[in-house]
Amino acid sequence: MRLVTFESNGAPRAGGLRTGSTGVLEVVDLQAHEPSLPGSIKEILAAGPDVRPIVERAIAAEHCTPFDQVKLLAPILDPQKIICVGLNYADHAAETGAQAGDEPVIFCKFPTTLRGPEAEIELPPESNQVDYEAELVVVIGARAHRVSRADALSHVAGYCCGNDVSARDWQKGKPGKQWLLGKSFDSFAPLGPWIATSDEIADPGQLDITMRLNGELMQDSNTRQLIFPVDYLVSYLSHVCTLLPGDLIYTGTPSGVGFARDPQIFLQPGDVCEVSVTGLGTLRNKVRIETEYH
Amino acid sequence: MRLVTFESNGAPRAGGLRTGSTGVLEVVDLQAHEPSLPGSIKEILAAGPDVRPIVERAIAAEHCTPFDQVKLLAPILDPQKIICVGLNYADHAAETGAQAGDEPVIFCKFPTTLRGPEAEIELPPESNQVDYEAELVVVIGARAHRVSRADALSHVAGYCCGNDVSARDWQKGKPGKQWLLGKSFDSFAPLGPWIATSDEIADPGQLDITMRLNGELMQDSNTRQLIFPVDYLVSYLSHVCTLLPGDLIYTGTPSGVGFARDPQIFLQPGDVCEVSVTGLGTLRNKVRIETEYH
Repeated sequence: MRLVTFESNGAPRAGGLRTGSTGVLEVVDLQAHEPSLPGSIKEILAAGPDVRPIVERAIAAEHCTPFDQVKLLAPILDPQKIICVGLNYADHAAETGAQAGDEPVIFCKFPTTLRGPEAEIELPPESNQVDYEAELVVVIGARAHRVSRADALSHVAGYCCGNDVSARDWQKGKPGKQWLLGKSFDSFAPLGPWIATSDEIADPGQLDITMRLNGELMQDSNTRQLIFPVDYLVSYLSHVCTLLPGDLIYTGTPSGVGFARDPQIFLQPGDVCEVSVTGLGTLRNKVRIETEYH
Repeated sequence: MRLVTFESNGAPRAGGLRTGSTGVLEVVDLQAHEPSLPGSIKEILAAGPDVRPIVERAIAAEHCTPFDQVKLLAPILDPQKIICVGLNYADHAAETGAQAGDEPVIFCKFPTTLRGPEAEIELPPESNQVDYEAELVVVIGARAHRVSRADALSHVAGYCCGNDVSARDWQKGKPGKQWLLGKSFDSFAPLGPWIATSDEIADPGQLDITMRLNGELMQDSNTRQLIFPVDYLVSYLSHVCTLLPGDLIYTGTPSGVGFARDPQIFLQPGDVCEVSVTGLGTLRNKVRIETEYH
């Protein structure tokens, strides 16, 4: 299944995505067709496998809206955690001059960073080194505490495209060298356009991943380059913190980020970022100067 | 006002605290007396100043329960953010050998770390260097985005005691030197026993703060030692991320932590940690070995 969150009359709705008879993508309002379903994708995931047949029935409903006529939001609006992995592609670790460690580098973003696939990335006046990072995002489907690698993927609901937007001057230049704030300006975590459930992704370690900036290919890799693959990450993290339905893991970015280029490239107003991952569509976000100062 | 969250019939309830006629502390179930009130302290804070008279009316209700007969939970159960400040007391920065920077060191804890004042701190098998950190915790009451220092305290709902429990081996010894995981094992953020609203705390920069381990005084300072005071922190953070009602800021710990002692002291099963701050009561947590392995 492919799951989305979209806006209707100013409120978020849980939706299912399908390919219509003419080949056009269509969105179905899940709760409108199956009122017993919870109202958000996070709650639907938390409800477990029992609701899956109900979601499938809703997706087969008669009434739908063409994909390009709905306003999509981030598929998960309120994750408890947005966990991120640093330096997790061999090619990216090399371009930053860092050594890959025995364990992953883990940091996080605040949930206020989340944005949907039609929202803008906002450049704050505090940074002039805002960079993109195309990432495969793991969506947790079932509580995970101290799970083994062998059992880890059974706790994953599905996958999504993400952009781990990063203010490099803040990430690297602040006291204590903690990455959190440089990764946590509002709008720095675009997510979407849809969640493909795990059954649609035969192997999360065999997905092409690209990032285009204004149409130009900047990152071009495959998740087989992940130093710490998805099952490892879920198991490793679950030994520290309990993972909950809707928690997101941004699994790291391949080579080709802006700050490692010569000359360096940073995001500018009017730019367009497009993250694409096999089976997960394209996450497209424009860039603008932050407009809210109050 | 003093606000608590307590458990009744297995469910969390929002409560108000008062001193009864005999001098005994009493807890009032807010929603039971004023059904128009939201069911959680976070929602009550988010409802803004309009509900304050209703909360005050509920606290004056006839029926109540002695404080020592309720099971207290963390006053805020589901904050969107738990933001933490590192090296924010001059005496603590000195004992760690770190230089205080021009800006604070900011990291965070996942919300799965939160525990109430009667819950145990659980020692995970992955660390043998678990340490205490007594802290003043700020509770955000109103959305704050790019607020000035002069306006910052108007966005603070109140204050609480907190313990920023830290696995030093993970905090300092993992690739990338990110503190997040060492601070984020489940149960590593005790909070409570109550929130004192801002009107009860004349100056958050003039509060005695202590930490006792098994009754012995280990940390003994005053928030006037804060390098970056509360108004600065709220304003600074609000320029990066939008602060929301219920967000928590652990403002840093004074000198006397276990790892900086000679010989070093780390938490052991059976230990009792007591964090006390002027006007905010005592947050008391026992320590045990983590019991859940599944």
